[in-house]
Amino acid sequence: MSTNLYDHAYELEKAMRNSEEFKHLLAMYEDVANDNEASTMFDQFRNVQLKLQQKQMEGRDITEDEVMEAQVIANQVQENEKVSRLMEAEQRMSMTITELNKIIMAPLNELYGSMA
Amino acid sequence: MSTNLYDHAYELEKAMRNSEEFKHLLAMYEDVANDNEASTMFDQFRNVQLKLQQKQMEGRDITEDEVMEAQVIANQVQENEKVSRLMEAEQRMSMTITELNKIIMAPLNELYGSMA
Ligand SMILES: [Ca+2]
Ligand SMILES: [Ca+2]
Repeated sequence: MSTNLYDHAYELEKAMRNSEEFKHLLAMYEDVANDNEASTMFDQFRNVQLKLQQKQMEGRDITEDEVMEAQVIANQVQENEKVSRLMEAEQRMSMTITELNKIIMAPLNELYGSMA
Repeated sequence: MSTNLYDHAYELEKAMRNSEEFKHLLAMYEDVANDNEASTMFDQFRNVQLKLQQKQMEGRDITEDEVMEAQVIANQVQENEKVSRLMEAEQRMSMTITELNKIIMAPLNELYGSMA
């Protein structure tokens, strides 16, 4: 890779690490990790999500029981303030990453757009 | 998004646009676009690839005829110097993007790694 690209990628990585978004996400993770109830709930929620995602990717059917289970945990999770703040922080970070990608990938998107 | 993140993302975008990798990809695209035979072949190859990818994503079966068709076009494409150089340039760019993502996403990967 061009040295210049590397350098700017590392600058962006540093900016990411020092950003409000990332520091906030880190703090919200710590709040959850230091609370047994919140942490257990969050792990359960994540596991159920991963399981459903994997089944979907493999083209397997998701049962009604599994949908119910996911809904119950999603409801519990929303009522736990620490977990729901963490999920908000994750969503904000995910939006930031989408925006970053849009900026960085603009040259390629323009190129492919012009070829269509 | 933090101003600092935006600024560094735009710096990286500029570096991307001025990188050897991108300029080379652009030049290889132009070589293909200005050559009717190469351009037609490349469009055919891309269309077959997109069709197979879409079928795969929708969980539909790919027929033997389709696999054959894809192989025939892939062979033709490899024998056309302009198209094969473009495909090499695309592969190089794709590796660069993978490396960039690895650098930029390191803070998040560390965070998620520590939670596992
Ligand atoms: Ca935990
Ligand atoms: Ca064309």
